[in-house]
Amino acid sequence: MLLGKVVGTVVSTKKESTLDGSTFLLVRGMDLEGKDTSTLVVAVDAVGAGVGEVVLYASGSSARQTEVTKDRPVDATIMAIVDQLEVGGKLKYVK
Amino acid sequence: MLLGKVVGTVVSTKKESTLDGSTFLLVRGMDLEGKDTSTLVVAVDAVGAGVGEVVLYASGSSARQTEVTKDRPVDATIMAIVDQLEVGGKLKYVK
Amino acid sequence: MLLGKVVGTVVSTKKESTLDGSTFLLVRGMDLEGKDTSTLVVAVDAVGAGVGEVVLYASGSSARQTEVTKDRPVDATIMAIVDQLEVGGKLKYVK
Amino acid sequence: MLLGKVVGTVVSTKKESTLDGSTFLLVRGMDLEGKDTSTLVVAVDAVGAGVGEVVLYASGSSARQTEVTKDRPVDATIMAIVDQLEVGGKLKYVK
Amino acid sequence: MLLGKVVGTVVSTKKESTLDGSTFLLVRGMDLEGKDTSTLVVAVDAVGAGVGEVVLYASGSSARQTEVTKDRPVDATIMAIVDQLEVGGKLKYVK
Repeated sequence: MLLGKVVGTVVSTKKESTLDGSTFLLVRGMDLEGKDTSTLVVAVDAVGAGVGEVVLYASGSSARQTEVTKDRPVDATIMAIVDQLEVGGKLKYVK
Repeated sequence: MLLGKVVGTVVSTKKESTLDGSTFLLVRGMDLEGKDTSTLVVAVDAVGAGVGEVVLYASGSSARQTEVTKDRPVDATIMAIVDQLEVGGKLKYVK
Repeated sequence: MLLGKVVGTVVSTKKESTLDGSTFLLVRGMDLEGKDTSTLVVAVDAVGAGVGEVVLYASGSSARQTEVTKDRPVDATIMAIVDQLEVGGKLKYVK
Repeated sequence: MLLGKVVGTVVSTKKESTLDGSTFLLVRGMDLEGKDTSTLVVAVDAVGAGVGEVVLYASGSSARQTEVTKDRPVDATIMAIVDQLEVGGKLKYVK
Repeated sequence: MLLGKVVGTVVSTKKESTLDGSTFLLVRGMDLEGKDTSTLVVAVDAVGAGVGEVVLYASGSSARQTEVTKDRPVDATIMAIVDQLEVGGKLKYVK
């Protein structure tokens, strides 16, 4: 999984019918110092994440292993909201 | 999924027979400022997207989870046309 | 799928037995101006492509969705020969 | 698989229910000289790896081929702890 | 598949039990001039490749389509030893 921060939302009315009701969130990659990376993905939310939260998202076929995304054309799913990141014995991030 | 803009079309007469009838669109990656990225993919269209539209496309096996692409050698499928992008409370893109 | 140009061939006598008879082609990534990119893959040919031709190739599990590559350890398959690329109303490439 | 070093841990209480009980480790990519690369992933641990250890992790659907990760939305799994790396007849790393 | 050169070996005693007996080889990416690229993967060997040999390896789920790797958490498998690379009518590499 990759670390990211939810930075926004995508609205789409014309989409694959199996995606009706899905929430599309813009996720910016984040490094261990809390800085943005160049990575930008649109992920379906499976855990009730909101803008500003630090999350883990799964990519590829693994993104479809949730009830929300099963058998749907989804290749990125937020599947955890991060509470803490600990690196070298120090807390790098606390929600 | 990744954000992109449809910039053109690909014509191919000699192709895998299961792809007869598929529309191949050239999709250029797009950042949140609306600028092109270096990413260029050829995606099959599942939602009636046209040149100039901002879209979301799914990659890998997820690209095959639509009626149009099921069991076909397709690794990129446009599955939503973007109406709005909202970042930090501001509309970054409106169709 | 990605755009590429067939630039050469690979000969291998010692290989997975399920790959006997497969043709391995060297494919160099190509941008919309016809220039090489840094991408280099070895793809199995499913459509009779030859050196010098511009092609589309599928990657990952999608590369196995053809008769030639089904259930084989192949992660890149040429599945279309490009006749035309049209961008912004202009023909960027004609075979 | 890719080579990496476990550098930290991720705590998450709100996550996909199938991930309850999984250990999320921060893994930094490592080159053959033992230096960090820019790669950073969050992997589920299948072998009891700890912070500071050099590991191999599998990505994508292959990450789900363990008892711990089967049918779960996991796209990176640590599946080996490295004891030795030998390159050009020399030991580059010994645990 | 990607082109690479076997540069070393990895020893691991603590690993996923389904990987017991697998040979882990360090593979460095190679370009058409025979130069190293920055790519470094650890691949399971399916064809008896040795250090110094030029090989093709498959990634992702395709890496599991061999007897040696089926249903195992392996995302990179060497599935051919290269005898010759021919580019533009010239032999770029001969074993």
